[in-house]
Amino acid sequence: MVTQKSFAKGSAEPGPVPKDKIRIYSMRFCPFAQRARLVLEAKGINHETVNIHLKEKPEWFLAKNPLGLVPVLESAAGEIICESPITCEYLDEAYPEKKLLPSSPYRKAQQKMMLEHFSKVVPYFYKIPMGRRKGEDVSGLETEMKEKFRQLNEELVKKKAQFFGGDSVTMIDYLMWPWFERIEVFGLKHCMEDAPQMKQWMERMWEDPAVKATMQTAEAHKVFIDSYVEGTPNYDYGL
Amino acid sequence: MVTQKSFAKGSAEPGPVPKDKIRIYSMRFCPFAQRARLVLEAKGINHETVNIHLKEKPEWFLAKNPLGLVPVLESAAGEIICESPITCEYLDEAYPEKKLLPSSPYRKAQQKMMLEHFSKVVPYFYKIPMGRRKGEDVSGLETEMKEKFRQLNEELVKKKAQFFGGDSVTMIDYLMWPWFERIEVFGLKHCMEDAPQMKQWMERMWEDPAVKATMQTAEAHKVFIDSYVEGTPNYDYGL
Repeated sequence: MVTQKSFAKGSAEPGPVPKDKIRIYSMRFCPFAQRARLVLEAKGINHETVNIHLKEKPEWFLAKNPLGLVPVLESAAGEIICESPITCEYLDEAYPEKKLLPSSPYRKAQQKMMLEHFSKVVPYFYKIPMGRRKGEDVSGLETEMKEKFRQLNEELVKKKAQFFGGDSVTMIDYLMWPWFERIEVFGLKHCMEDAPQMKQWMERMWEDPAVKATMQTAEAHKVFIDSYVEGTPNYDYGL
Repeated sequence: MVTQKSFAKGSAEPGPVPKDKIRIYSMRFCPFAQRARLVLEAKGINHETVNIHLKEKPEWFLAKNPLGLVPVLESAAGEIICESPITCEYLDEAYPEKKLLPSSPYRKAQQKMMLEHFSKVVPYFYKIPMGRRKGEDVSGLETEMKEKFRQLNEELVKKKAQFFGGDSVTMIDYLMWPWFERIEVFGLKHCMEDAPQMKQWMERMWEDPAVKATMQTAEAHKVFIDSYVEGTPNYDYGL
């Protein structure tokens, strides 16, 4: 698939979504958008991708999602779905083959509670490297991060499972994965010292076809993050 | 049903959940817990209520939910479910009669997006009255609140609907309701001036049997809030 460069302010709006497809508005380096991209790939959903220049957003994109965030899904019927966990669950329900969420209400609730918990871990992935760049002492944050990873590790140990939802990749793994793909670039791998099962989980995730299909190299992530921090995000790096 | 006084630190843990019931750990004046109570009532789910003293939490309650928040559900199988939107969706799936969430994936996603939007309105219900108590100028916040209500009003106008999910009460109405029950006590009713359809929605909601079953009087809410602000929340007021 040819990846199109990002659409910026002033660009022409892409035409209507083809009848047999769903469209995702994305940004190639955005971990939240990657959640939906992982689900699209894992379920083999016929889709097209429109990358958005998040610093100079097209007017027509803001009309679709006034918050201006990705991912956004647009169906052939013109339905708009925003917010990464909502897009992922929508895809799992609208395309019911190869379900990623458990059918048991309790096991589904467990995945949502885990996501709620993980959402409180996400800010650390940014606070620590940003603090370091500013020359701040981040050792306290690193200690907290280690404890978070230790708790996640404990989940795998308790369940005696290969993945967070059991012995195959399910929704919760994809919802968490994008930040672990970037863990080395964020300089946070040492925080996983006390989380050996998490490390094994990462090894297994790297082998997942959807992960392979949506990943960026550590080099590309690094270039993007550096450009982002400098205020000129290189959304089209490598194209 | 006899309402039990709240269980505090040092209290004996209630026995196992009876086989034909689900238990909710709640607090009589908590709007988040009320969401789950509304769903329990609306669906006619056989349940028992254990009220928690949120200032002096029982040790056994913290063991069930280390965050110490209500609502928490406990099934007869000992399954624990936390976080109000998760508890509500769990109940809707585990007790599939009289569904409150739409079956269409898109309409369900719409309710979740609306909830996400409403979650950003919730803090205003607290910031404005708290600011006023401290003698701060809250006129700017009030203007923002009016705009939020105007936007919610617009949703009803656009849909030409009596309720937020259509012409009957559905999940989203119950998820939003608890803060509107308290709107007069919070001194925020004047912020609804430009939201006439919202006012009509409130009139209709007051007639709903689940709302009637879970509501507290304005007087009781006022006593509770005053006691809360003074640092000695009267969880058992009126029992």
